[in-house]
Amino acid sequence: MDIDDLAKRVAAGERRALARAITLVESARPDHRAQAARLLDALKGAGREALRIGLSGTPGVGKSTFIEAFGMFLIERGLKVAVLAVDPSSARSGGSILGDKTRMERLAREANAFIRPSPSQTQLGGVARRTREAVALCEAAGFDVVLIETVGVGQSETMVAGMADLFLLLIAPAGGDELQGVKRGIMEMADLILVNKADGALKETAMRTCADYAGALRLLRKRAQDPDGYPRAMTVSALSYDGLPEAWAAMGALAEWRRAQGYWAANRAEQARRWFEEELRAALLARLENDPRIRGMVADLGDSVAAGETSPGAAADKVLDVLDR
Amino acid sequence: MDIDDLAKRVAAGERRALARAITLVESARPDHRAQAARLLDALKGAGREALRIGLSGTPGVGKSTFIEAFGMFLIERGLKVAVLAVDPSSARSGGSILGDKTRMERLAREANAFIRPSPSQTQLGGVARRTREAVALCEAAGFDVVLIETVGVGQSETMVAGMADLFLLLIAPAGGDELQGVKRGIMEMADLILVNKADGALKETAMRTCADYAGALRLLRKRAQDPDGYPRAMTVSALSYDGLPEAWAAMGALAEWRRAQGYWAANRAEQARRWFEEELRAALLARLENDPRIRGMVADLGDSVAAGETSPGAAADKVLDVLDR
Repeated sequence: MDIDDLAKRVAAGERRALARAITLVESARPDHRAQAARLLDALKGAGREALRIGLSGTPGVGKSTFIEAFGMFLIERGLKVAVLAVDPSSARSGGSILGDKTRMERLAREANAFIRPSPSQTQLGGVARRTREAVALCEAAGFDVVLIETVGVGQSETMVAGMADLFLLLIAPAGGDELQGVKRGIMEMADLILVNKADGALKETAMRTCADYAGALRLLRKRAQDPDGYPRAMTVSALSYDGLPEAWAAMGALAEWRRAQGYWAANRAEQARRWFEEELRAALLARLENDPRIRGMVADLGDSVAAGETSPGAAADKVLDVLDR
Repeated sequence: MDIDDLAKRVAAGERRALARAITLVESARPDHRAQAARLLDALKGAGREALRIGLSGTPGVGKSTFIEAFGMFLIERGLKVAVLAVDPSSARSGGSILGDKTRMERLAREANAFIRPSPSQTQLGGVARRTREAVALCEAAGFDVVLIETVGVGQSETMVAGMADLFLLLIAPAGGDELQGVKRGIMEMADLILVNKADGALKETAMRTCADYAGALRLLRKRAQDPDGYPRAMTVSALSYDGLPEAWAAMGALAEWRRAQGYWAANRAEQARRWFEEELRAALLARLENDPRIRGMVADLGDSVAAGETSPGAAADKVLDVLDR
């Protein structure tokens, strides 16, 4: 594969080149990994920066419909929008986020939109690396907004928040009791809580739910990177587009404030450092997998430990000795 | 420290020696780690096997009271009982499991009981290793039952189930709605669900709750290692001891069946293999921490990545190169 040519075409914003580049970073093959590293290095100088928005919400809150409406809203404003899905459950049972584009048909047809389903990797670590690299590729391809979508299942939120500039939590209108269903940890990551479906018969319920969450947010400890009035709860309707301009304005105001205060750059720097540390740990652990001799040794020693012939610690020492040779 | 002498005294069942040995395996100091490995190796031949019981339950279900009652019940039957607490939250804010023995005053005074609070380590991996080693030490010291106690917060249950022969879930009597509060994943690990506080005014509620859980258990897919009638839900009272003989009989019958079918040995073999693999990964990652030169290099490269001068992947490669030299 001609990596320099691919880099040029990604930088020119060619969607097919971007799709191929993401397929490359998703591959675990060592030669693909090397090519992916070269590609990312070649595109590093582009200096383009997108607004990276993390978005979470449990199944049923209307995430796809919201993303389609929000995406169309941004495109109408002349912006280019990429959507990356992160679904740790996709390896099993098809996952909660559909693996095709049919759920956002309208957005998928737009020339200024790029939608990428979740890769079907089992390990969250692998998904994290791939998604971070895909975000970098979308940025290099000139997308203005990169939406990183995930489901409300805990660890994947932390991961997505760890690569986003802003984090949105999408909520369905519901009775006060169900407020407890959102994990406190996820609420604490949110910059904006958007109560969806604020239209028709559900509008009043949505407004009450929004007020409930606004109250709950006031009880959380204020973070340094929050200006007055943030984190915020707002209502939106993916159906009527009501509230989308206000939500977008709130994101813009927050992003601008954070840029001015230096939190934006500090956050990105910290995220890059963590990315490096995770990359390093993953590369170190990959040594146990990549070399067939080591893999065989681990399997044999595992049998010996299982049979009670070797202690787990002594077996580990033996592998380390061979790795050191 | 004279490791051979310590091993001898642990094998003789001396409680103070056991406490010292556990303190040794809890230490992260490299020289202590080496001594701990020697100690565990010296005790490996003892060939003693305890019944390892994992026990989980959210705060408020009466876990301490149950453990004290169950422990006294076992001691009255001539058995030696060790209790190890695993509380991943103990590093922050004191944790949910109290760090002293005062909560089980009666049991703590018994010559045939040994109670050890949770170590205050931040990383679950570190706690896992220490607990597995502490279990092995308690076994070598001749304890018949080792109770490994944890709180209902997800990952720590998986860890405890990964080192236990049986897994108990303790539940408080409650209305049907609250059944949903127990995570499905934790229910799927349980061999026995014990509804506590089945006495006085709560007795009827406890029986209803027990029936609810029995119904829920029937909806779960049957595991190969479950004989007919398991997993089971039963009521117990830590206050009146009602149900304790039945619960203990149910544990014994399950353990016996699994021994006869080969699941017991297969499970222990699989657990030992996983222990080895985790040990190996931890030892490999420790190389990033142990050598001050590498630690400094990681910090410097982290600064460079944060400043945007080096890409995360390139920085990781540099560290790996030095580790290889």
